[in-house]
Amino acid sequence: MEIAIDSTNTQKFTKASDFTPAELASKSIVDLLEKTQIQKDEIDGLIVSSSSNDLYLGNIVSEMIGIRPKFSTKVENLCNSGTSGIMLAYSLIKSELCNAVLVTGAEKQDSQGNKLTWDTSRGQYDMPIHWASLYAQNHFRKYGTTEEDLAIVSLKNHASANKNKNALFYDKQFTYSSIINSKMMVEPLKKFDCCYPCEGSSSILLLSEAKAKRTEVPVWIRGISQNNQGASFGSISNDLDSIISTRIAAREAFEQSKLTPKHIDIVEIHDAFTILELLAYEDLGFVEKGQGRKIIKENTLYTNVRGGLLGCGHPIGATGIDQTNEIVLQLQGRAGLRQKEGCKHGLVHNMAAAGTSTTVIILEK
Amino acid sequence: MEIAIDSTNTQKFTKASDFTPAELASKSIVDLLEKTQIQKDEIDGLIVSSSSNDLYLGNIVSEMIGIRPKFSTKVENLCNSGTSGIMLAYSLIKSELCNAVLVTGAEKQDSQGNKLTWDTSRGQYDMPIHWASLYAQNHFRKYGTTEEDLAIVSLKNHASANKNKNALFYDKQFTYSSIINSKMMVEPLKKFDCCYPCEGSSSILLLSEAKAKRTEVPVWIRGISQNNQGASFGSISNDLDSIISTRIAAREAFEQSKLTPKHIDIVEIHDAFTILELLAYEDLGFVEKGQGRKIIKENTLYTNVRGGLLGCGHPIGATGIDQTNEIVLQLQGRAGLRQKEGCKHGLVHNMAAAGTSTTVIILEK
Repeated sequence: MEIAIDSTNTQKFTKASDFTPAELASKSIVDLLEKTQIQKDEIDGLIVSSSSNDLYLGNIVSEMIGIRPKFSTKVENLCNSGTSGIMLAYSLIKSELCNAVLVTGAEKQDSQGNKLTWDTSRGQYDMPIHWASLYAQNHFRKYGTTEEDLAIVSLKNHASANKNKNALFYDKQFTYSSIINSKMMVEPLKKFDCCYPCEGSSSILLLSEAKAKRTEVPVWIRGISQNNQGASFGSISNDLDSIISTRIAAREAFEQSKLTPKHIDIVEIHDAFTILELLAYEDLGFVEKGQGRKIIKENTLYTNVRGGLLGCGHPIGATGIDQTNEIVLQLQGRAGLRQKEGCKHGLVHNMAAAGTSTTVIILEK
Repeated sequence: MEIAIDSTNTQKFTKASDFTPAELASKSIVDLLEKTQIQKDEIDGLIVSSSSNDLYLGNIVSEMIGIRPKFSTKVENLCNSGTSGIMLAYSLIKSELCNAVLVTGAEKQDSQGNKLTWDTSRGQYDMPIHWASLYAQNHFRKYGTTEEDLAIVSLKNHASANKNKNALFYDKQFTYSSIINSKMMVEPLKKFDCCYPCEGSSSILLLSEAKAKRTEVPVWIRGISQNNQGASFGSISNDLDSIISTRIAAREAFEQSKLTPKHIDIVEIHDAFTILELLAYEDLGFVEKGQGRKIIKENTLYTNVRGGLLGCGHPIGATGIDQTNEIVLQLQGRAGLRQKEGCKHGLVHNMAAAGTSTTVIILEK
C-alpha cells in the first residue's frame, strides 16, 4: 500500500507567546482540518512531536480538537522529532493499524532541547555550535570551503524567508555584508551562520491509499528512512568529512524510492548551521564530497525555499514537519510566492544533535 | 506478516536509586540481549517509553548499549506509554521498515506523571484516586460491589507479588485484615486499594516472522489495539459504568485475533486501583457488566499473576512492558515460581489517566 500526504498547516513561527504546546498544536490542526476533504471523525491517529516536558500531549490535543483516535502518543527525538513522528505515522498506516494519521509538532522557544547536556564527550562545550564549528574547520582545511561560501548559504536562506510569512525572519533585511560581518560565535561560525531557537507549530495529515483517492492533490511518500549513530559527538567524530547518519538514511530512502539524486527537483535541508547545508548536499549524493558549495553556485537544485532553519527559525519538534510541508506544498503547486515550477520529486532532510540522527523522506507528486 | 516477541527482561522495581532513566533502560536491555539468539547488530529499532524529562533517550540508550539502529525515539503516553511503544514497534516491523525492535521502559519514582495537573475538569482533585473513587462508588451503588470485594483483589495481587522477585512488594506480608483496615484515602478507596509509584525498567524484543524462526519459543501478537477518549475525566464521566477506551480497544483486538474472551487463559490487568481490575474484566468481555468480582470468586482466569500494579508497583513508562513480559513468560513456560500450566492465549490491558486511553494486546504461544 502506498502512503500519501494530503494537507498541511504551519502557524507563524515567533519568539514567544502565552500559548501552551497543546494550544499551539491544536490551532495548527484546526486550521489544517478546514482545508481537507477528510472528516474529523476519520482521523484515527495523532502523534505530537515535541521536546516539551508536558505529559500526555497526544490525548490532551485529541481532546482539544475533538477526536477519539485509535492511536495517540507524544514522540521526542530532539531536532529530528518531526520526521520521526512522520515515519511512525507512515508505519501505522502501512501496517493497517490506522488510515489517517495527524502528526503535529509544537515547541516553545525555551525548550531544554537547545543544549546537549547529556553529551559528556563535549566537556564544557555543550552547545551544538561547538561540533558544527569542527565540521566547518575540517571542510575549510580539506576542501577549501570559505567563510564567504557559508555567508552565501545564509543570505540565500534568509532571502527565501522573505517569501514565507510563517518564517521568524519574514520581512527582515539581511545583506551579504551584515552576515559576513556578524559577530563571531565559535570560529569560523558567526551569528548568522546559526539558526535561532523559536516557538512554532506545524501539522501534516498522512493517509492510506484508499483515503487519498478522495483528496485533490495527494503527494506520495516514495522513500522514508532514518539512521542513528548514537547520541554524542564522541561517537561520530572519527570522520568529520561526513554526516554518516545522513549518508545511510539517504541511501536507503533512495533505494526504497527507486529514484536517484538526479530525479530530485527540490530539497529541504536541515541547515541548523550553514556548514551543515553544504555537508548535507554531499552526503545526500547531490554532489561529490567536498563540493557542497557547487550546488548553490551552479543553482542546480531548488534548496530550502521556505527559508531553511536559518530563515524560519527552529522550533525543535515542529521543524521536520514544516520542512516536509514545504515540499508537499511545492509538489501540490500551492506554495504561493515561493512556488517553483515543474517540481515532481522532492526530498526532506531532518537531523538531530551533531548529525547523530537523520531522517530522509522522498516525495513524489 | 506475523509479528513475534522473543525475549524480555525486567529489573527489580525499587523505591529509588542513583541511576538515570537511560542507565535503567540500558541495564535492562543488556540483560535481555544476553538471552536471545538475535545478535546486537540485528537490532534495527529502539523505542524508549518514559515520562522522564530527559531528551533524546532513544539515541542516548542506543549509544550506551552500542547499537546504531534505523529508527529510535522516545514515546510518552503516560501510564499507557509502554504498550504504545510496543504498538509502534509492531507497526515498524509490519510495515517492513524494521525487523527487530527493542522497546524499553524506564522510570524514576518522582516522575511528574503521578499527577494529572492538566485536567481542569477535576478542579483541585488532580490525583488519579479521585476519579477511581467515583468509579467505585458507582459500582457499589449500582451492582452491589463492596469494600470486601476490593480488598480481595488487593490481597490476591499482593500475594502473587510474593512469587515475583522484581516486584516492589516482593517478600512483604499483606493480610486481608491489614488491607481492609488500611487508611481510608478517598472514600471508598483505602491505601492498599492503590498502586504505588516506583522506579523500574523493563524491556521487550519484537521480531519479524523471518527472524522469529531463529528463536526458541516465539510468542505471537494476534491482536493489538488502542483507543483514546480524550485526556480529562470530564470527557468520559457521562458513563461511570464502563471504561469506554477499554471496551473499544478490546473489541478491536479480539476482532483482529479472531479469538474471543473464552480463548484467553491468562490476563494482565491495569489495576492502578482495585476497582479498575473489576471494571476491566467487564469491559474486556470476560464477564457481564457489574459482575467483575465473579472472575475472582469463581477463579475462571489467571489474573495479574506477576502481582499487578498493586503488588509490583507502578514505574509509569515500564509498566505496560512488564505486563506484556509476564504474559510472554507464561506462554513460553518461563515464569518460574509463577508459572501457570496450559496457557495458550494471554491478554494485556494497559491504561492511562482515568481510563481515557487503553491498549489491549492478545498473545498466542
